Amino acid sequence: MTSNVDRRLAELGFALPDAPRPLGAYRAAVQAGGLLFLSGQLPIKDGALRYKGRVGIELTLEEGRAAAELTALNALAQIRQFLGGFDRLRQIVRLEGHVASAPGFYEQPKVLDAASELLSRVLGERAGHARSAFAASHLPANAAIELIVTAEVE
Amino acid sequence: MTSNVDRRLAELGFALPDAPRPLGAYRAAVQAGGLLFLSGQLPIKDGALRYKGRVGIELTLEEGRAAAELTALNALAQIRQFLGGFDRLRQIVRLEGHVASAPGFYEQPKVLDAASELLSRVLGERAGHARSAFAASHLPANAAIELIVTAEVE
Amino acid sequence: MTSNVDRRLAELGFALPDAPRPLGAYRAAVQAGGLLFLSGQLPIKDGALRYKGRVGIELTLEEGRAAAELTALNALAQIRQFLGGFDRLRQIVRLEGHVASAPGFYEQPKVLDAASELLSRVLGERAGHARSAFAASHLPANAAIELIVTAEVE
Repeated sequence: MTSNVDRRLAELGFALPDAPRPLGAYRAAVQAGGLLFLSGQLPIKDGALRYKGRVGIELTLEEGRAAAELTALNALAQIRQFLGGFDRLRQIVRLEGHVASAPGFYEQPKVLDAASELLSRVLGERAGHARSAFAASHLPANAAIELIVTAEVE
Repeated sequence: MTSNVDRRLAELGFALPDAPRPLGAYRAAVQAGGLLFLSGQLPIKDGALRYKGRVGIELTLEEGRAAAELTALNALAQIRQFLGGFDRLRQIVRLEGHVASAPGFYEQPKVLDAASELLSRVLGERAGHARSAFAASHLPANAAIELIVTAEVE
Repeated sequence: MTSNVDRRLAELGFALPDAPRPLGAYRAAVQAGGLLFLSGQLPIKDGALRYKGRVGIELTLEEGRAAAELTALNALAQIRQFLGGFDRLRQIVRLEGHVASAPGFYEQPKVLDAASELLSRVLGERAGHARSAFAASHLPANAAIELIVTAEVE
């Protein structure tokens, strides 16, 4: 059965990637009470890191936004894998975004808006989320972006 | 009706600023169960960023502490706006503090103490909070500090 | 009475250090509902910071891993101190790891695996935890690593 979320993703031209596997000795997601904590997501597709380097040096703002979009799709893929769909997702509660950034690049919120807007278009009111943005000098595996998502689930 | 918290703020010579609006496509605060998650707060007053740059270069330790105090006031303003006052605030649970820092500046806890002490003077036992401190090479909008607050609410 | 966790630690040759005291005006740990939030832990033993500097410059990968292990022990010590043992610990929910890193050092997950593996060997299934890894240019007190742990408790 296709959920509203899957249908909405298809309408927007997105295909949900396979949920990336953890890069070490931890779990992709853990539920405690009504909260689901996801591990840090990177801009990975088909097992390969698609966006490396810093926004403002190796990457443009637009590439950073594309990286944010892909990473948000991975977060959705993790939620779907953990919950077996989106019916039990009540809302995204928190989104922390770490953007690998050139010195003097201060537009992290514009990069992260690509993730927030994707969530909003796909999930509607359930996109919710308080957000915090950070500039990283670099990130694990030289990733361009890392997103940490916390969701409320039923 | 003036709450104890508002009275305490006035006694200490503080006026709670208007809660800053989100800088992008997200919400200022989201509640899930008994937890209230705030978006990252910056040292903004009357819509303008008041403290820019790094502690140890563009800013002194004392300026960093003033930035931390202002940012903590913004967190309180967000809580008041979301809850319609402070009666339903049970305690501050977690405070993450990211301080834009010169290379070789390691006194982030002293900067953040200005935020923790303000919360303690205003909220008393309800100031609670576990804390984590970080040195950022820079922050969105070139802010001097960013605080992420999680609160327990009724 | 010695708990299974204490026995397991002894079998592995680890002694749980005294829980380090906060470095400022905050609490070591705060519980809200079923979640226990710990303050950021550093590689401290007997009151002294044991690992300073950046992995890839002042410290080798192996030293970074030893720092991660010590810091994970401190997190366990905080949990034991707060709960009066490990019986009420249901699982580790989230582990955030910030590794002070040389420019161009991208192996933060390998450093953090030392913490995750320790938790797993000591706590078994209760080690749980979603994880996020970050590269810091530096950390408070020039610490090599900072871990932020959130646990589910009864």
